[in-house]
Amino acid sequence: MTQVTFNSADEAEAAFYAAFEAGDADAMMAVWADDDIGVECVHPMSTRLVSRDEVESSWRGIFSNGSSLKFEISEVRRMEAGELSVHIVHENIRYGAASGQRSRVIATNVYRKTEHGWFMVLHHGSPGAISPEPAAPEGPLH
Amino acid sequence: MTQVTFNSADEAEAAFYAAFEAGDADAMMAVWADDDIGVECVHPMSTRLVSRDEVESSWRGIFSNGSSLKFEISEVRRMEAGELSVHIVHENIRYGAASGQRSRVIATNVYRKTEHGWFMVLHHGSPGAISPEPAAPEGPLH
Repeated sequence: MTQVTFNSADEAEAAFYAAFEAGDADAMMAVWADDDIGVECVHPMSTRLVSRDEVESSWRGIFSNGSSLKFEISEVRRMEAGELSVHIVHENIRYGAASGQRSRVIATNVYRKTEHGWFMVLHHGSPGAISPEPAAPEGPLH
Repeated sequence: MTQVTFNSADEAEAAFYAAFEAGDADAMMAVWADDDIGVECVHPMSTRLVSRDEVESSWRGIFSNGSSLKFEISEVRRMEAGELSVHIVHENIRYGAASGQRSRVIATNVYRKTEHGWFMVLHHGSPGAISPEPAAPEGPLH
């Protein structure tokens, strides 16, 4: 396992997206906290993963596709207190070098400070429409 | 505006879902923090709402539909430190008294303690499949 120390939530977040781009599951799991601290991961349109094993399996599955993603993170909102840091971000994603396919994911990322530095404890991603104005919510889902 | 004080994140969360069920926009906005503290709201499949005015407009729009929702909140995971409390929950929703229509939303709710009690600062909801086992993520969205 990769042994690294993240000195801030921002450092952990940078490592999270670097591991995601690299498709490196070991580097990815070095960002996540242990089960005794508690982790949760919600991939877009998927269910809650509530243990480190489940989270690791999901990333290994995602990375086994061999897809090449590039992330541009924008509009980062930070909510911080003590050992917790909540980041809400736009993940602006490009797929592959040539496809030109793009999408946006809205992610809430939560980090916790431990004696060994900062670790991710929550990643909650959901599809975010690329539109200049907030859309009016409608339909049966609130 | 409704004047209430929430003595814990759990109290604020109970008031949030009570206001949601009642379709009471004033009671709903009494749960939310002011702009100087900072608020964000992501309704399922919608974009980020980043001010109190935007959040209030969205709730008034939702409640103007007159739909009658019933929430059963389950599998609450709390991550707490200092003045921040992060809750990840399942919203198990029933629509109307007789329709029998159900859905699940996965929500990350964040609360902040102020000198006036606890307030909601983030609601991030996304569609959650009702399935007994976590689904394997797939497709272009990570």
